[in-house]
Amino acid sequence: MRLTSETSSDGVREQLFILGDIPGVLWTPEDAVGVRPLILIGHGGGEHKKAPDVVACARRFVTGGRLAVAAVDVPGHGDRPTDEELNRIATENQARVAAGEELAPLIAGFQALVARRTVPEWRAVLDGLQALGQVGAGPVGYRGVSLGCGLGVPFVAAEPRVHAAVLGLGGALASAEAAARITVPVRFLVQWDDERVPRAQSLALFDAFASPEKTLHANPGGHGELPASELDHDLAFFSRHLR
Amino acid sequence: MRLTSETSSDGVREQLFILGDIPGVLWTPEDAVGVRPLILIGHGGGEHKKAPDVVACARRFVTGGRLAVAAVDVPGHGDRPTDEELNRIATENQARVAAGEELAPLIAGFQALVARRTVPEWRAVLDGLQALGQVGAGPVGYRGVSLGCGLGVPFVAAEPRVHAAVLGLGGALASAEAAARITVPVRFLVQWDDERVPRAQSLALFDAFASPEKTLHANPGGHGELPASELDHDLAFFSRHLR
Repeated sequence: MRLTSETSSDGVREQLFILGDIPGVLWTPEDAVGVRPLILIGHGGGEHKKAPDVVACARRFVTGGRLAVAAVDVPGHGDRPTDEELNRIATENQARVAAGEELAPLIAGFQALVARRTVPEWRAVLDGLQALGQVGAGPVGYRGVSLGCGLGVPFVAAEPRVHAAVLGLGGALASAEAAARITVPVRFLVQWDDERVPRAQSLALFDAFASPEKTLHANPGGHGELPASELDHDLAFFSRHLR
Repeated sequence: MRLTSETSSDGVREQLFILGDIPGVLWTPEDAVGVRPLILIGHGGGEHKKAPDVVACARRFVTGGRLAVAAVDVPGHGDRPTDEELNRIATENQARVAAGEELAPLIAGFQALVARRTVPEWRAVLDGLQALGQVGAGPVGYRGVSLGCGLGVPFVAAEPRVHAAVLGLGGALASAEAAARITVPVRFLVQWDDERVPRAQSLALFDAFASPEKTLHANPGGHGELPASELDHDLAFFSRHLR
């Protein structure tokens, strides 16, 4: 893992890094020394590691909880090169939806394909981050909604260092099988009027988690309208489970 | 309203009162002077104003938020005389369930009957409490689950002094009509494996609230297994909405 730049503002240090061909960003308290919990954030579809909602979440966790937070670009997103295969499938899917095909199964298939790459990538990123002095081998949390849920569920299922996860805006079609292998505490977010994930699919995914401790929070509004106040609940959840 | 006794422990003053034939209890900070938000708690079926979960909730709100909290016995419960009509209906309902009839519609009918008495009673209790110096005419919240939801929904719909409500473990069959008249912020609690309220009924009641600001929290477990940690969320919710 190679650190390529470092800046600081309002008490938060931001370091860009590259691991192999994966570009990422690490946020820590400006004065951070020693081991602390690390939250990996999975960004949404069409977003990237420094999308506004990712940065807002990271800054809230760093300033409110003195956590370390990291995000990396998913293949075909942000600073990564265009991915011909993913591009082709995304274009095909758009055409199929335009022709009247159901959206949810197409999203599910696409996310499963991407997850086969991101699960090993993110595990390698964890290795690299935990070797840094201001992160260390503390407990790990994961937060991802939408694409970040579709990719996050198989990651959390596969990675024993993850002790708690905030997931949401995702459905059972894409994720139920891997969800059944997750036993760590899960906070699951649902948008009650989600136009991309049918409500029954959301509720079925919540059902599928094997975690004895899981909680579902639903709010009115569409896929993109998750209330900012849920970030405070996210932080309280991680603070409780990652000590 | 006549205050009949007063005790204090661990910073919480507890005063029993009688209003007409309604026995109640008021909890306030021991050193309380002046106006503060008041939370009315509606107890569950078969419980009473000082049931352990009611007391735990009241003490949390008083010590954590310096709120005033009150609860009264529902007709036929606690220190109120046996109510022949309600008793007869409850006995009939038990027989009908034993004979294979569905539980939810019977609960709904029973709660509608009781609510016709409790709505005016609780409004009169609010009048009495708000005349006390350590309560005053501040904003009012309501918290009730199970029977406390069935009776709470029509109360919150009818009483403009209530500015926020925590409700839950109740279904649309009993409460959807009154819920559609509620526009204040609502926090709605669902037990995911509720054996008394079918899940679809719970979700339909959440749907029915007209409140622009509403949030649903669901946790695994049966009707009686609401996690104690939800009390912290209740307090944060009231603290946010009753200032």
